[in-house]
Amino acid sequence: MDWLIYFDLFGVFVFALSGGFDGAKYKLDMFGILVLAVATGVGGGIMRDALLGRHPPVAFVDHAYFIVCLSAGLLAFFFSRKVERHMFYVRLADAVGLGVFAAMGASIAVEHQLGWVGVVLISTLTATGGGVIRDLLVREIPMILRADFYACNAIFGALVYLLLHSAGVNEATTTICAALSATCSRLLAIRFGFSLPQARGHRH
Amino acid sequence: MDWLIYFDLFGVFVFALSGGFDGAKYKLDMFGILVLAVATGVGGGIMRDALLGRHPPVAFVDHAYFIVCLSAGLLAFFFSRKVERHMFYVRLADAVGLGVFAAMGASIAVEHQLGWVGVVLISTLTATGGGVIRDLLVREIPMILRADFYACNAIFGALVYLLLHSAGVNEATTTICAALSATCSRLLAIRFGFSLPQARGHRH
Amino acid sequence: MDWLIYFDLFGVFVFALSGGFDGAKYKLDMFGILVLAVATGVGGGIMRDALLGRHPPVAFVDHAYFIVCLSAGLLAFFFSRKVERHMFYVRLADAVGLGVFAAMGASIAVEHQLGWVGVVLISTLTATGGGVIRDLLVREIPMILRADFYACNAIFGALVYLLLHSAGVNEATTTICAALSATCSRLLAIRFGFSLPQARGHRH
Repeated sequence: MDWLIYFDLFGVFVFALSGGFDGAKYKLDMFGILVLAVATGVGGGIMRDALLGRHPPVAFVDHAYFIVCLSAGLLAFFFSRKVERHMFYVRLADAVGLGVFAAMGASIAVEHQLGWVGVVLISTLTATGGGVIRDLLVREIPMILRADFYACNAIFGALVYLLLHSAGVNEATTTICAALSATCSRLLAIRFGFSLPQARGHRH
Repeated sequence: MDWLIYFDLFGVFVFALSGGFDGAKYKLDMFGILVLAVATGVGGGIMRDALLGRHPPVAFVDHAYFIVCLSAGLLAFFFSRKVERHMFYVRLADAVGLGVFAAMGASIAVEHQLGWVGVVLISTLTATGGGVIRDLLVREIPMILRADFYACNAIFGALVYLLLHSAGVNEATTTICAALSATCSRLLAIRFGFSLPQARGHRH
Repeated sequence: MDWLIYFDLFGVFVFALSGGFDGAKYKLDMFGILVLAVATGVGGGIMRDALLGRHPPVAFVDHAYFIVCLSAGLLAFFFSRKVERHMFYVRLADAVGLGVFAAMGASIAVEHQLGWVGVVLISTLTATGGGVIRDLLVREIPMILRADFYACNAIFGALVYLLLHSAGVNEATTTICAALSATCSRLLAIRFGFSLPQARGHRH
């Protein structure tokens, strides 16, 4: 469906924004910010496509992906002058992208006839892959490891997708609901600081 | 052959354990530990499958891989309370996984009609890929670079596999011997601290 | 064409050299240096092949790639005793490899009928992938983010390739010119320290 591409591009845009703001935080020059925006925006989708055998990945074929990433990178570059709290914007954009990509990943995995574990894994990988690449490139411990419940939110979105899909709900509603579930649960986790127990051998 | 899957799952289990203990060392929360366990357990195999064109990778299709990783992660999480020397367990589990995956990688590469260099490279990648992902995620210099002879052990296992395979020894014996060769040589290297010369320009 | 393989191998050689010198800088032992040389030399090409669906990647099939990497690694290991300025050699080898791989990536992407964005992205990925792997493994912020204009040079090479290709210039001239454009622009950027503006929100 056509609107799915725009939905995907929206996810690419917000993830690229998160990469751009992260680059600004580390005082990269304009080109470093653009590179980080592109890598964050299309990284998760490229990993998904490579693993599912979709050659070449859609981001290499459809020019819109590249242009959207560059726009987001430029926006982050020029906007970063005015904003002080880059970390907040990185996290907000990241949460929205997480939801969109979790839904997209689930949708494509279902299309490839994967079982529920495959759908959950591909969905999580699509939703977190770009962020992991971003964090590795700027040498942070990836959010997926340090942020409480991070991957949980993607998994939650994938499960919502599977549930609605198997209940026969139409594609559009299923995708939107899955994305909203993942994004909202992520924002709630950020807002209320849910946290899981740490490994206890190290407490003392 | 059926037993090969159980053998592979055993490798996944010990690698996932090594990831889980590593996560506990860095005081990740439970979910971070599970993510690290999954990434370490199936990372090497997924990279191997993506490069050989096995789409989708087996870890996305067979639910057992995911469940084994989660179990290992939970075990590491709860067990880490009692153990002080996480590093020792990381290294032990890592050595066993290295052997199993070197043999599995060699077996699959031979199945894909690769030459000896291809077999050695795929075997090394399968055996070390998960560990490299684990070390990158927690920002350590990967064991493959800093541990003496690390990749050597995987290569040794691959060569043993090639030798026995070309000598007409049956699949089961070949695989087990290759795995034992790699794991034992790794344990010996840890125990006796074999080391290779460093680049000499920096000694003074 | 046959000479393209030698051209590609030359790129592998200089990138492997850059990996080897980088390893020497971090005082890795001989094996760590060899691993880094192999990963840097063939990493970009393997990522390109995996994304384009060329299974298995050429570096796993043609033994020459592996042997060239090992030779470069050994050379870096023994030569590093005599050279003090490893960083200079890393950057020089890196610049030459960047050009060769940008041209190779563009050539293969054109062969796969990608559009200009796809050609530019594959070319940049091929040219910078090995270096990113090298920098991640030794935990440096990748050159592609911190070196001014780094990815720009690869993109410049890809655009020169596209321009000459669409003008009907023969394959050999096109490839050589693209490689020279990328390498020379990189060397100029190193020599004259061109730099782009940083994100301005952080200047004070």
